[in-house]
Amino acid sequence: MPELDLSASSADLTRAICDVPSVSGDETPLADAIHAAIGGLAHLDVYRDGDTIVARTDRGRAQRVVIAGHIDTVPINANVPTRDIELDGAPYIWGRGTVDMKAGVAVQLKLAAELVDPRIDVTWMWYDHEEVAAELNGLNRLSQTRPDLFAGDFAILGEPSNGEVEGGCNGNLRAIVRTHGVRAHSARAWIGENAIHRAAPALMRLAEYRPRDVAVEGLVYREGLNAVRIGGGVAGNVIPDLCEIEVNYRFAPSRSVAEAEDHVRNVFEGFEVEVVDSSEGARPGLDAPLAQEFVAAVGATPKPKYGWTDVARFSALGVPAVNYGPGDPHLAHHDEERVPVAQIEGVEQGLRTWLTAS
Amino acid sequence: MPELDLSASSADLTRAICDVPSVSGDETPLADAIHAAIGGLAHLDVYRDGDTIVARTDRGRAQRVVIAGHIDTVPINANVPTRDIELDGAPYIWGRGTVDMKAGVAVQLKLAAELVDPRIDVTWMWYDHEEVAAELNGLNRLSQTRPDLFAGDFAILGEPSNGEVEGGCNGNLRAIVRTHGVRAHSARAWIGENAIHRAAPALMRLAEYRPRDVAVEGLVYREGLNAVRIGGGVAGNVIPDLCEIEVNYRFAPSRSVAEAEDHVRNVFEGFEVEVVDSSEGARPGLDAPLAQEFVAAVGATPKPKYGWTDVARFSALGVPAVNYGPGDPHLAHHDEERVPVAQIEGVEQGLRTWLTAS
Repeated sequence: MPELDLSASSADLTRAICDVPSVSGDETPLADAIHAAIGGLAHLDVYRDGDTIVARTDRGRAQRVVIAGHIDTVPINANVPTRDIELDGAPYIWGRGTVDMKAGVAVQLKLAAELVDPRIDVTWMWYDHEEVAAELNGLNRLSQTRPDLFAGDFAILGEPSNGEVEGGCNGNLRAIVRTHGVRAHSARAWIGENAIHRAAPALMRLAEYRPRDVAVEGLVYREGLNAVRIGGGVAGNVIPDLCEIEVNYRFAPSRSVAEAEDHVRNVFEGFEVEVVDSSEGARPGLDAPLAQEFVAAVGATPKPKYGWTDVARFSALGVPAVNYGPGDPHLAHHDEERVPVAQIEGVEQGLRTWLTAS
Repeated sequence: MPELDLSASSADLTRAICDVPSVSGDETPLADAIHAAIGGLAHLDVYRDGDTIVARTDRGRAQRVVIAGHIDTVPINANVPTRDIELDGAPYIWGRGTVDMKAGVAVQLKLAAELVDPRIDVTWMWYDHEEVAAELNGLNRLSQTRPDLFAGDFAILGEPSNGEVEGGCNGNLRAIVRTHGVRAHSARAWIGENAIHRAAPALMRLAEYRPRDVAVEGLVYREGLNAVRIGGGVAGNVIPDLCEIEVNYRFAPSRSVAEAEDHVRNVFEGFEVEVVDSSEGARPGLDAPLAQEFVAAVGATPKPKYGWTDVARFSALGVPAVNYGPGDPHLAHHDEERVPVAQIEGVEQGLRTWLTAS
């Protein structure tokens, strides 16, 4: 089992845990290493569920923050082990997981070990299976089996945000817009009804759709409504009797899933619409007093998070949550994934300042 | 090997050859039986190439007609052996191949044996692999290796035409209309360009397209321009960078493939268009003197053939050709394929009258 030295620098810790492969489903070696390193610390109560590890301080503080990060990555593509590189004179750590999101986890591990007496009680969570189906997600599993562990006044998810505070997230809805027709030989097309032709006005509505920008608690969320897939056709000489457009609606957290569904049904009025998947968004939660303190302490200007992240799980449990981690989210899953060392150190310093300031 | 009695009625011969399965690729047993039955007839010169059999009279007539039929069928679906059924009081033979086109072949076999001294020389052709790819087609193969056998003043293909004369056939062109975009995560759609949305105007042009009816040598051909397939999409959370619409243009035989291609490119001006397959149509050929005699002799009102058939191969070789056979073309390939006995007898009598009238 690899050993983790939690007194190392957060950059070194990033290198160390990135070099332990932990593609979703294969997190156990890294979870074991984290468990071993954290388990011996007297100031933490440690709980493990599968490859999810929870470590809590219990200083009897008036307030509690949950700080979480996933330990899995998307598949490796010749980008492990990590390498030190320099871009425009600045040092970076390059490799799978550096952005999404082991640099964030490294900072959390270091501070979990270091901060034996934080001014706010902390529940640290490192979890598995974030990059795959929601039903496998360790945070999702834990929220069902041990919702008590999620108790808190505020939550911080270490997802990459370029060291900025990104509040909340858009909601997400997928639906199938379906048209039907009647099959016929294409040499006698007038006997049939072409389902693909019938989909033309639906596609025009998408092409002409202008997404909203929506201000929620001071942050502006950009929405989007897009076809992500289209399919139809039987054979090269057959008038098709079915066409399906899969649409993906990303909606501001001021809108519920039910409202989002209404909106999509309105856009495609006259068409068959089947909602196949949906996730509530998360309001930024920046009006919570602890959130405002946090933003002030780390010196960040809050921005909206566009992509759906696990902050929505905290939001659904009534805990305001933000994303705060090193790394450019555009480089997540990228084969050239890389994180500036300065951002790792900045996030480490930001969290430390907030958790220890008197 | 099954034995064929060519002195039987054309209905009995239809039953007999339908009961010898001959799905494309498995024509040999039926070809062997035909070869054996025809090979011993002194008034015919017989030539065999694979499972294609050619039998010619050589009476030194001033004119020659080619009469052809394919012996293969689409796959059997619990519809062999044949059954005798009655619909609205009329007798039918039911089963795979009865319509497409063994009843037509049965009539041809019977007349080939019977007419030892026709007033026009006849080249009979029974060929394999009509229902599958053109490069396997026996008539296609023979037209390349033995074009001399196609010499004639007129050709009759026994494809089902309800006992009517169907002249020529529409041309056929398939093309891919392609749009490109830029991939992006669907949570940040504005970074990408949606290729499926870009296909919307192309689909609208198809939906609004009004096909022509074109008179050619007195027959009115209906055209058609249809999407037969559409595809695009990478994943449920990715803005797609490619969308492809496969369109099928069926065009009147007054238009060449080159003109058809121009037309399709005009319709989709501004879009990338790739022609992937094309076949020339065939003019009805009803202005040929022998064709006019034939139509008068069988007492039919000529109609246009919409679907592409092998008449186009004769047309391409400069031989005017028509479709003339028993069976409703709408029932071709149908699991309830069935032919009225009266149509078999009608086509038999029509051909006999024409080939023997003084």
